[in-house]
Amino acid sequence: MNKDIFMELLSKGEFKAVRAILNVMNAVDIASLLQELEGRELAQAFRLIPKEKAAEVFANMSNTLQADLINLFTENELKDILNDMFLDDTVDLLEDLPANVVTRILASISPEKRRQVNLLLNYPEDSAGSIMTIEYVDLRRWMTVAQAMAHIRKVGIHKETIYTCYVLDARRLIGIVTAKDLMTAEDDTKIEELMETEIISVQTHDDKEQVAQLFSKYDFLALPVLDGDGMMVGIVTVDDAMDVVVDEATEDMTLMAAINPSEDTYFETSVFQHAKNRIPWLLVLMLTAAITGTIITRYEEAFAAIPILVAFIPMLMDTGGNCGSQSSTLIIRGIALGEIEFKDLFRAMWKEFRVSLIVGMILSVANGLRILIMYRDTSLAFVIALSLMFTVTLAKLIGCILPLLAKKVRLDPAIMASPLITTLVDTCSILIYFRIATTIFHLSA
Amino acid sequence: MNKDIFMELLSKGEFKAVRAILNVMNAVDIASLLQELEGRELAQAFRLIPKEKAAEVFANMSNTLQADLINLFTENELKDILNDMFLDDTVDLLEDLPANVVTRILASISPEKRRQVNLLLNYPEDSAGSIMTIEYVDLRRWMTVAQAMAHIRKVGIHKETIYTCYVLDARRLIGIVTAKDLMTAEDDTKIEELMETEIISVQTHDDKEQVAQLFSKYDFLALPVLDGDGMMVGIVTVDDAMDVVVDEATEDMTLMAAINPSEDTYFETSVFQHAKNRIPWLLVLMLTAAITGTIITRYEEAFAAIPILVAFIPMLMDTGGNCGSQSSTLIIRGIALGEIEFKDLFRAMWKEFRVSLIVGMILSVANGLRILIMYRDTSLAFVIALSLMFTVTLAKLIGCILPLLAKKVRLDPAIMASPLITTLVDTCSILIYFRIATTIFHLSA
Repeated sequence: MNKDIFMELLSKGEFKAVRAILNVMNAVDIASLLQELEGRELAQAFRLIPKEKAAEVFANMSNTLQADLINLFTENELKDILNDMFLDDTVDLLEDLPANVVTRILASISPEKRRQVNLLLNYPEDSAGSIMTIEYVDLRRWMTVAQAMAHIRKVGIHKETIYTCYVLDARRLIGIVTAKDLMTAEDDTKIEELMETEIISVQTHDDKEQVAQLFSKYDFLALPVLDGDGMMVGIVTVDDAMDVVVDEATEDMTLMAAINPSEDTYFETSVFQHAKNRIPWLLVLMLTAAITGTIITRYEEAFAAIPILVAFIPMLMDTGGNCGSQSSTLIIRGIALGEIEFKDLFRAMWKEFRVSLIVGMILSVANGLRILIMYRDTSLAFVIALSLMFTVTLAKLIGCILPLLAKKVRLDPAIMASPLITTLVDTCSILIYFRIATTIFHLSA
Repeated sequence: MNKDIFMELLSKGEFKAVRAILNVMNAVDIASLLQELEGRELAQAFRLIPKEKAAEVFANMSNTLQADLINLFTENELKDILNDMFLDDTVDLLEDLPANVVTRILASISPEKRRQVNLLLNYPEDSAGSIMTIEYVDLRRWMTVAQAMAHIRKVGIHKETIYTCYVLDARRLIGIVTAKDLMTAEDDTKIEELMETEIISVQTHDDKEQVAQLFSKYDFLALPVLDGDGMMVGIVTVDDAMDVVVDEATEDMTLMAAINPSEDTYFETSVFQHAKNRIPWLLVLMLTAAITGTIITRYEEAFAAIPILVAFIPMLMDTGGNCGSQSSTLIIRGIALGEIEFKDLFRAMWKEFRVSLIVGMILSVANGLRILIMYRDTSLAFVIALSLMFTVTLAKLIGCILPLLAKKVRLDPAIMASPLITTLVDTCSILIYFRIATTIFHLSA
């Protein structure tokens, strides 16, 4: 839908046409179409959305727009929207809105729903509980397929998914039946004959990243969430798992580039906020790099005697940093995907050690030859080759050890990425380099 | 299921127990349980899997194990498995197996399925066509809900999903009906009254990453794929979209760390292959860094006169590199998520410029103060602060421009990440630094 045409119709008061457009459009697209409206026009356009779609449109809007709209709503409109929204969307809404708006919302929903919302709001931020919904279809073992279908027809409209149904016995989950099973079975088949009893489930406090991994491993559409006593409390659906996968990858990449992650997109984040997210790590890393500088001053006499030594500092630093970030990236991603654990530390180190021998050898030979050809100095070529060899090995080992150690002490392994590794490896490589150089050229440090 | 117990039961010939275990286990878990078996034991265990689960187990195995099993299968066993496998899994299988095994498989499937497989194999590697399946439920507009349900009962078992049904008119897609619509509608409702006609679809040659983005944007369970003439040829399901999201994030991170991506996990990849994936970029970057070294030699007299200048090289290089990789990471991820496009180039540059002013200012002041306190040298503090300011601004601009340029010329933006940016920024920052230093200290270059 063309935004300009839509705006024009709206401002000209062609409400019939606007309504017709909103009628055929997807809720997600309507949400982004309304994104640039405000005030009276926004409220007007929103009121033209077909009632059955309004809650979904609202759930897909940005927080700013949601807050604006809530201020424009009458009490009844607010009640209607909140009534039609899925519980997990309501919780998402509350988590990001200013406190005064939250109060108004909590006052507008029924006591029962308020109790449920408060329960969901209390789960830790990264837990399965925080992304689950408590709206699922529950069946009983003694039902027939026909009874189950009738039950779904009655309660299904308000459930986030009806494609996976849960067979409960006094709140305990005893089986799973898919809509496919129901649709392809005979009407008088008993649910207990149909249900799958080998159940894969998660706990409310499980890490949401691990929950998302289960979805990509088993190709589920929904996963049941149990509380500490093994009672069923809700489900996580595949669309929420997909969001987790995308968000976690973004967060890891951001953290790996020494930036404090933000939930907003690049352009949504203000210049000041961007600076604030980036400065802390830059300052820490800058001061750490100053240590490397201090080490260099200790070897002032060495490069006063052989100035060409200084020329190889950038190459050694860059290569060390790159080797380290290669290893740390592979390990960090492996940890995130559940492929590498702390117990694999020595296995990973042994692998990185062998890789670094091959890599170090080839880089040393390439660089040694270049130096021999350019400077015709065998000792210099040897010093550089040897320094490279040590730097590469050290960089790869540091790059593999630190993320796994971080995981062990419950830090995010993504912190131990390129920038930090680079700074650490720099210090070591400069130290190694000048040690080797002073020894071979018989210089005093 | 405990692996050791399973092995013991298998080797003792307790086939009844083994079969009972395999009967209740999830296909994905069986596949990973069998992962460590080989030869006669592998074939034996596989034959004990309930027939309706065998194809799914097989589809979830590693390529090595699949190839082993195919060699152990009789012609009939192979035919049965291939017959029960979804078409997209068969295609995945063929893409990764050695040629002789592929020939045997193609000979075992029906001419019709062979034709379809060949068609799917011909889609470009990263296209929607390469991840789609042609097995979907098609309905007609004149059907009633009861007729549609009967149709699904008849054909549904062999379809990858029955939850989204497609209403076709002479192969042209005219509407979409969900299983939820069917289950909650009256039996005699006509499909054309029920169907959604505002359809979001993709083309066979669309990039699979963009297709995956549609899933996370609209929360679909399946998306229809049309050919160039607008005829329906298949569907992409949410589980495949989830795999694309995970794989693309891994590929981007790997590429961003200057490694050629591999499809295998960290430990599955051999030491030699790891080295091979990492060396090319290291060599290129090492030789580029050598240019920075050559620049330094031109300023030999400068640091012979003021040796302390050398001590600030690591700090400037690291900070420049970190600033550049912060910007490039945010831009690269923004491009991957469809939030930033080439047309946003100037908007992004303007944003980065303002961010770099704040960041540069704070880093310069912090460092200037440190130098004033440590060395009590105002000129030196000024030189370093000014160099930092220029380096930060340049780094952030390079980090924002290069990924967008890469996108424009259809390279993967992820190449323009930390390592390459760092090396480029290094060269510039050293040049800036010595220019400023020689000017302020009145040294000859």
